[in-house]
Amino acid sequence: MGTHALDAAFHPRSIAVAGASANTTSAGYGFVLQLITYGYKGAIYPVTDRWPEILGRKTFPGVRDIPGDVDYVICCLPARRVPTLLHECAAKNVRVVHLFTGRFSETGKEEAADLEKEVLRLAANLGIRLIGPNCMGIYHPGQGISFNYDFPTRPGKLGMFLQSGGAAAEFIYYGGLRGLRFSKVVSYGNALDINETDLLEYLADDPATGVIASYIEGISDGGRFVHALAQATQRKPVIVLKAGRGRAGARAAASHTAAMAGSTLVWEAALRQAGAVQAASLDDTIDLALAFYYLPPFRGNRIGVVGGGGGRSVLSADEWEEAGFVCAPLPEPVQGLVRSTLPELWWGWIGNPVDMSLFPIEAYAGNLAGNMLQMMAESDELDLVVANIAMGGPFSKKDFAAMTGAQVDSILKVRQTTTKPLVAVVNTGILRPEDFRHQRWQALADMAHRLTEGGVPVYPSPSRAAWAAVRVMRYYRRREGADRPLFTQ
Amino acid sequence: MGTHALDAAFHPRSIAVAGASANTTSAGYGFVLQLITYGYKGAIYPVTDRWPEILGRKTFPGVRDIPGDVDYVICCLPARRVPTLLHECAAKNVRVVHLFTGRFSETGKEEAADLEKEVLRLAANLGIRLIGPNCMGIYHPGQGISFNYDFPTRPGKLGMFLQSGGAAAEFIYYGGLRGLRFSKVVSYGNALDINETDLLEYLADDPATGVIASYIEGISDGGRFVHALAQATQRKPVIVLKAGRGRAGARAAASHTAAMAGSTLVWEAALRQAGAVQAASLDDTIDLALAFYYLPPFRGNRIGVVGGGGGRSVLSADEWEEAGFVCAPLPEPVQGLVRSTLPELWWGWIGNPVDMSLFPIEAYAGNLAGNMLQMMAESDELDLVVANIAMGGPFSKKDFAAMTGAQVDSILKVRQTTTKPLVAVVNTGILRPEDFRHQRWQALADMAHRLTEGGVPVYPSPSRAAWAAVRVMRYYRRREGADRPLFTQ
Repeated sequence: MGTHALDAAFHPRSIAVAGASANTTSAGYGFVLQLITYGYKGAIYPVTDRWPEILGRKTFPGVRDIPGDVDYVICCLPARRVPTLLHECAAKNVRVVHLFTGRFSETGKEEAADLEKEVLRLAANLGIRLIGPNCMGIYHPGQGISFNYDFPTRPGKLGMFLQSGGAAAEFIYYGGLRGLRFSKVVSYGNALDINETDLLEYLADDPATGVIASYIEGISDGGRFVHALAQATQRKPVIVLKAGRGRAGARAAASHTAAMAGSTLVWEAALRQAGAVQAASLDDTIDLALAFYYLPPFRGNRIGVVGGGGGRSVLSADEWEEAGFVCAPLPEPVQGLVRSTLPELWWGWIGNPVDMSLFPIEAYAGNLAGNMLQMMAESDELDLVVANIAMGGPFSKKDFAAMTGAQVDSILKVRQTTTKPLVAVVNTGILRPEDFRHQRWQALADMAHRLTEGGVPVYPSPSRAAWAAVRVMRYYRRREGADRPLFTQ
Repeated sequence: MGTHALDAAFHPRSIAVAGASANTTSAGYGFVLQLITYGYKGAIYPVTDRWPEILGRKTFPGVRDIPGDVDYVICCLPARRVPTLLHECAAKNVRVVHLFTGRFSETGKEEAADLEKEVLRLAANLGIRLIGPNCMGIYHPGQGISFNYDFPTRPGKLGMFLQSGGAAAEFIYYGGLRGLRFSKVVSYGNALDINETDLLEYLADDPATGVIASYIEGISDGGRFVHALAQATQRKPVIVLKAGRGRAGARAAASHTAAMAGSTLVWEAALRQAGAVQAASLDDTIDLALAFYYLPPFRGNRIGVVGGGGGRSVLSADEWEEAGFVCAPLPEPVQGLVRSTLPELWWGWIGNPVDMSLFPIEAYAGNLAGNMLQMMAESDELDLVVANIAMGGPFSKKDFAAMTGAQVDSILKVRQTTTKPLVAVVNTGILRPEDFRHQRWQALADMAHRLTEGGVPVYPSPSRAAWAAVRVMRYYRRREGADRPLFTQ
């Protein structure tokens, strides 16, 4: 455990849950349950005088009754009981208290805001750092710490700080489905003590974190944050989802985390200046995180696209070009492959994107699309290659699963044998329960899953893939001091 | 059957498939199979001299060998055999031939383009109208005509014309998952004879079609099309997805359907002028079609939003406002409900969007969120109401399915007892196969499905819902001659 206060929160030797409960719908039950479920290795101390044990763990009437020191306390007590708790924590050398407890300044009530100030002053005097109040705290899969069920147990390299616990949970669930895995995630609520800048600096220094993403409603010290951000973005990509941009959003942010949302124009300019990657929605943030997570650095905008039918090829061209990419001429080896595969056909008809439906079905033998993708990935004339997956043609229903399996194999071979940035577009659909049993959707879901597991980020549409990928390109251009087009049309 | 040539295509008394085949991966097999599978009631004549029967149906060596007249012919023959076929068709009083046959002008070869011209001249002389060439033709579920397996069998009110057969199939599959059902869909390829304007006019006149959507790569007579479009949009919403907008897209469109893509700026201006609703991707088009399909006309921009936690509420406010809506003050009855539910809490804390996580869990009893939504829907102070569904809190895993079921009931009650425009935001996730068995995703998928079946359009995010809904509002404002804000901030 290092000397940074947050080290105690991320690597605690023991955790007490103050306000632990046997009521299964309460937070005081949930936090204890998750520590056990996720396999937290240190001592777990449920603190309550109402039950002798919770989930098979002996309880303690107060923090003061716990034998020995406690590093980290999760507090589910009502707001008025927090000051007493802090005094008890000081006696046990607690270094960080996470206040799940809400109903402080976010209520807009003066007495609640006064109590919040008192809590901060007291914690500072006692040498205790605070996460929150009014937040879900820490998800750290490597240490078995989580605030919700069914989060991924395998850690990854995405670090996040989010003012909203609900947004954190949604991000982890929906991002987890897409293949994101997490180093450390903190829901930090009202940011009374430890704030966005502390968390940003910590994750920027954290060797386990390769990409940073955040959800921010308001900031206390804008100057300090922007300075830290400019330094962090020189080391790692930092994605910022600024919420509370409009009138109602700012009002909602004040009710939610007592945040002062600030001017959207000022925010946008400052974030851009500092080199952050900006998102405006949960899906944006996930799309961006996925691209930064899986794509190697690249700075050129010449793409090659293979797969799909005519309409999909035309729309792909539009959507990639509108995002800032150029569909380059087919590299000579790909042209040669088309010529040798189809000597009877005039190869000049085939362009980039390669519309696979122009080839007769016999030509597919020998993995034509996969070979083209491989040649594109090996070409110096392309910076990014795209596997554009159709949902299957009208005349071969029964072979669909076998066909998608072979496609996955050939795409993963490209991933394993080249270093070229590679993305796949697979639309797995918004399924109804009855579709869960349908071979088409099972095959597409399996395909997307295998590709992601193999290191290929998957997007449901060309426009979403292109929107995210161009921001990866711009980030690395800027970071290398080359914020100008390397190749233009 | 009416006198319009397309009536023969949509309501044929008999259909011949020229170039029918027993090869199960061929088009000549697929078209016969689909007519049988979808329950086409007229006579089906597979035409081939290679097999005596296909799928249990007697074949005929040539169209001339069929007893009696034939209304509609689907042609899967190679291009060079089309002229002979047309002569045979004339002898049988065939009114419309759908040329699935490709390899005409889209190849860029002069002799292929010459053959295409000859086919057009010949058909005109023989009094035969052509759909295509190089297209999938007709999906008309009400008549049992389809060009692909697993399309919805239940008809609906969305009519479509699409230059790409692949785009048509993707639209029908992915739109079908979202709850769209179709009156008539035509994939019309190279538009050699029957073109986009003919199809637009036909669908504008078609009483079974309430909403029109289209995918267009290029247009032969822009003036005629824009004139027809301006007339059609006065009667029904018309969504246009113009493809081939960029350099590579235009090139791809030429290879695909020999389309001249035209200037994007000119297109956009003309479509806007004619009152069309413009889309730029498949997802856009589906989102728009869903909104026009399910939302009643409305012209005001004051919304009320209920549900979800803090982060989701803040982002909802941002995303709806950025699209052009205003989160109005809570109507007095909703304020009263909050006051009476929570006398001990300062009701002014609760705003619009209503963050349900601010209420203690006990307050949920008695369907608090549903009652608020109902009051919002009954209020003259709101134009659109939004059920904002969270994916479930951290502390009540086991009750999730029951909770979502009750939410659906209360939302459908609002739909059944009021006429207010109502949308739901439910993010059902991009699922991996293993997630198909998870109760969370099953419950959310079931929820989204039940809502749509009950007439409530469902969107995966606030921004997508808002993007589509604001275009419905603008369409009806414009159509009523009131293309100005009715309510502003």
